[in-house]
Amino acid sequence: MSISIEQLADKLAGLDAGKMYQNDFFFTWEKSDDELQAVFAVADALRLLRENNISPRIFDSGLAVSLFRDNSTRTRFSFNSAANLLGLTVQDLDEGKSQIAHGETVRETANMISFMADVIGIRDDMYIGKGNAYMREVANAVRQGYEEGVLEQRPTLVNLQCDVDHPTQAMADMLHIIHHFGGVENLKGKKLAMSWAYSPSYGKPLSVPQGVIGLMTRFGMDVCLAHPEGYEVMGEVEAVAAANAAKSGGRFSRTNDMREAFNDADIVYPKSWASYAAMEKRTDLYGNGDDAGIKALEKELLAQNADHRDWACTEEMMKLSKEGKALYMHCLPADISGVSCEMGEVDASVFSRYREPLYRQAGFKPYIIAAMIFLAKCEDPAAMLRFLAERGQARWVK
Amino acid sequence: MSISIEQLADKLAGLDAGKMYQNDFFFTWEKSDDELQAVFAVADALRLLRENNISPRIFDSGLAVSLFRDNSTRTRFSFNSAANLLGLTVQDLDEGKSQIAHGETVRETANMISFMADVIGIRDDMYIGKGNAYMREVANAVRQGYEEGVLEQRPTLVNLQCDVDHPTQAMADMLHIIHHFGGVENLKGKKLAMSWAYSPSYGKPLSVPQGVIGLMTRFGMDVCLAHPEGYEVMGEVEAVAAANAAKSGGRFSRTNDMREAFNDADIVYPKSWASYAAMEKRTDLYGNGDDAGIKALEKELLAQNADHRDWACTEEMMKLSKEGKALYMHCLPADISGVSCEMGEVDASVFSRYREPLYRQAGFKPYIIAAMIFLAKCEDPAAMLRFLAERGQARWVK
Amino acid sequence: MSISIEQLADKLAGLDAGKMYQNDFFFTWEKSDDELQAVFAVADALRLLRENNISPRIFDSGLAVSLFRDNSTRTRFSFNSAANLLGLTVQDLDEGKSQIAHGETVRETANMISFMADVIGIRDDMYIGKGNAYMREVANAVRQGYEEGVLEQRPTLVNLQCDVDHPTQAMADMLHIIHHFGGVENLKGKKLAMSWAYSPSYGKPLSVPQGVIGLMTRFGMDVCLAHPEGYEVMGEVEAVAAANAAKSGGRFSRTNDMREAFNDADIVYPKSWASYAAMEKRTDLYGNGDDAGIKALEKELLAQNADHRDWACTEEMMKLSKEGKALYMHCLPADISGVSCEMGEVDASVFSRYREPLYRQAGFKPYIIAAMIFLAKCEDPAAMLRFLAERGQARWVK
Repeated sequence: MSISIEQLADKLAGLDAGKMYQNDFFFTWEKSDDELQAVFAVADALRLLRENNISPRIFDSGLAVSLFRDNSTRTRFSFNSAANLLGLTVQDLDEGKSQIAHGETVRETANMISFMADVIGIRDDMYIGKGNAYMREVANAVRQGYEEGVLEQRPTLVNLQCDVDHPTQAMADMLHIIHHFGGVENLKGKKLAMSWAYSPSYGKPLSVPQGVIGLMTRFGMDVCLAHPEGYEVMGEVEAVAAANAAKSGGRFSRTNDMREAFNDADIVYPKSWASYAAMEKRTDLYGNGDDAGIKALEKELLAQNADHRDWACTEEMMKLSKEGKALYMHCLPADISGVSCEMGEVDASVFSRYREPLYRQAGFKPYIIAAMIFLAKCEDPAAMLRFLAERGQARWVK
Repeated sequence: MSISIEQLADKLAGLDAGKMYQNDFFFTWEKSDDELQAVFAVADALRLLRENNISPRIFDSGLAVSLFRDNSTRTRFSFNSAANLLGLTVQDLDEGKSQIAHGETVRETANMISFMADVIGIRDDMYIGKGNAYMREVANAVRQGYEEGVLEQRPTLVNLQCDVDHPTQAMADMLHIIHHFGGVENLKGKKLAMSWAYSPSYGKPLSVPQGVIGLMTRFGMDVCLAHPEGYEVMGEVEAVAAANAAKSGGRFSRTNDMREAFNDADIVYPKSWASYAAMEKRTDLYGNGDDAGIKALEKELLAQNADHRDWACTEEMMKLSKEGKALYMHCLPADISGVSCEMGEVDASVFSRYREPLYRQAGFKPYIIAAMIFLAKCEDPAAMLRFLAERGQARWVK
Repeated sequence: MSISIEQLADKLAGLDAGKMYQNDFFFTWEKSDDELQAVFAVADALRLLRENNISPRIFDSGLAVSLFRDNSTRTRFSFNSAANLLGLTVQDLDEGKSQIAHGETVRETANMISFMADVIGIRDDMYIGKGNAYMREVANAVRQGYEEGVLEQRPTLVNLQCDVDHPTQAMADMLHIIHHFGGVENLKGKKLAMSWAYSPSYGKPLSVPQGVIGLMTRFGMDVCLAHPEGYEVMGEVEAVAAANAAKSGGRFSRTNDMREAFNDADIVYPKSWASYAAMEKRTDLYGNGDDAGIKALEKELLAQNADHRDWACTEEMMKLSKEGKALYMHCLPADISGVSCEMGEVDASVFSRYREPLYRQAGFKPYIIAAMIFLAKCEDPAAMLRFLAERGQARWVK
């Protein structure tokens, strides 16, 4: 990256991102274009500082509270890396997975864990209609606590994946695309295929495809969502995608034909997910504690999946893409045919060829999270970047 | 708070708290009045520093070991916040809950985890006659290890709740009272009702009421302990409370009538607990691995509780208090009627009215814990406060 | 310790340890004599700095990832202490114990957790032929990730105990011996008895005796490995020990007679372990998920153990040692007769007499681990030691 901190600070200074200060990050589509550009600029700057062994630490002490309501390795490590980079210590809140707290309990717990919390990161993607609502309940509780003087600082809520959006993933994916194509200005008209793909597992969250169509449509790209019938995503996110495309001069289309999506695509993102309707049903079954119903649903959904084994990112499918060389993307871990399962989302040879870019893609996430926190914590982020570069504090005294 | 660090340092310099240096904190009643005042002064000072974005970090590195033998969210977060504020990293010792180690094992484990430990925080409140004894065993082991040169530093033990006292809770409660009434000098004659209250759960620890009567009687207050027959607390703590009251010019009384306690009270603290006798019985049953006996006891105790559903902090009861406006206190979480249970310790309307002060009350705990550590680690705490204020290191570079 | 940082830095400057920079630590026998001496010198220096309240912190931020595939208290605390001392924050990777990942998954996970990881510490001692192989797979994956630019820094792998070696334990043991005998130059001809001892438990790892004979034979000592028939260790490590002894002018012998080993010994290290053959069998049974087979094997091995109850470090056995005063060593926790079990590895009176040196022995481990990390992270460790001493940053502002 030949860009300098000074250039990134200049860019940042020209963006209208002031509303991010002391604010939360729930959905990308609630943020302005300038705000998203600010996240990308800060992420690049934090990475550049670290690559030059300059610490971007802005906290001497303070907690970053994490609450993972689903297992997670990479998002957990990304959040912890981001917190650590800025000087915060992660403290897990382990509530138990099944228990969904409400009302008084949420308000109270949110405040009790936040006396010295600067950030709260939540992953809650299991229950349709509930994950994001829970995050907002927590954020409201601590904002109120801050306003009443109960809390000395306002903890920033970062959505680490909910039932609707997965903003840290989609933003990391987007920054990867920007770098791959040499700048956001080169993305106009680029075709991205966000496609369902077969997996022998069940119930993967919708937030990745939703996050992708909700974000990638903002840069003038031609975003095509492909899936078999019955694997529809949330209608409200499709509406967001359509509106984005109209505004950005891009395109948002849907198809039930994977080949159509891959055809001439610059970027392919083939990935399994459960249908919105199935996830809603499951949420109700969980709510009623209907174990037999859950098992029956699982069986039904796996059978439904099995009808679409041909939805795989094979070498043959890749040949359909632009010059046969589309950028293959995945949020990882992928179900690789013959490696992690018999038949899965992607051919082993395709996966192997893209391993390095896939790892790079994942590598943006810690910086995206750190940038979201940074912008919520620095009133003048451009000035802060300049200050950090000038301070020149070594991350690692060599 | 209009008081300055300079004033707090001056106050601290006038107190005889030298024995707290390199020492532990087990029971409030083992500490002199000056020592308790020192904890309050340091807690206020640490908060004031942090509110002014000045870091009170006194450790560049070092561990704070935590051992929670019972589930805990708020005490865990308070301990971790306190450690983080001073620059220590928390390392949990997860021994498993059921296993109570003795003798050689305790001595060895205590030393093995303490090579770089500056603090050890223990919560062990489940077993009557054992929790505090275990803490002292650990503290003795590491003191000996330090004296023999096995450990380079002497880890300070902080009692995060035992079978007898809950000093970090009681001290936080007291600091809340002091702030609420505008100073410790305004507490003479104030009536505090520490009352049992009905809860549909079973076996809540005695250490909260014991901690409260063992501490609040030292400030000239009129402390009234109320509970149904059969819910007696430890006799030795009642004796402490009586002696405290005699010495401080206050009063300690007991009653089996909740109304008598609430009558004209300035402060009410209605809360469920198990009786000492029942907890002793349970400890023996656990010791013998008598699961059937434990179940039978639980059933018996819940039935016994159910006889006292009228012991609730209702609006009607609140009207009995001083001008109907007593300060309502609780260590949280409370069993709120119609919210967290059908019938519980407190009416929802009472709880809601006091939510903000309740959250404030809880907010003192991290600072109380940090103050206990600070006083054990700074030979001249007044000078250290002045040094920190002058150093002016930003906690959060804004 | 009357030696100064300056002297240790001088010593270090004279050693050829440059290959340790940006490298891993798997087996002691892969390291040169100079490299081992460098670890000892740095461990002593880090301790000396800390004892003088000078922080050897070389990281402003960064992660130390730990992966424990077996329960651990003391190694976990040692690793966390070492990381903390140098300024790193530990992040546990909790994969579940039973699941042994391979190939693509290992490569991917290793990179996903390492975007900001400076160190990875792994304990994987359960499965013969697999633990060390897994560590090397992880190390290769992240080295490749670093070379490809996926990772900005190269995480150093530290073997926290595998199926073959336990280098942090053996090195800590050795540093204890060096200090006890007043320097490595006094060890020529000293006799060390690494002896099997009876324990009522089953399946203790082989890596301790293997680590000890693989390391202690390098200093001209007379190392005698004693065990009943059927408790053989890995042949390849015995070969290493024999070659070491030949090269160092020492001796490596084996016997099935504990008395022969203890006879005139300067150091005795009596400890239970499972036989290599039994561990291999168990690994296969685990691999096949053969629970019945595992239970049968356990029964068989306990019965086999019970045939050798006379292999205990009794007072009578101790009398055989040099002037009856050999240095008794153990990696802890020991099975103490009449204390932690009816009959075990050592008499209570012997253990008690050596408690203080045993604790000291354990106390070297955090510094050994920190030294391994330090040497992998500092291109000129001697200069860095001088820099840290001169910087004089207080670990604890008193």
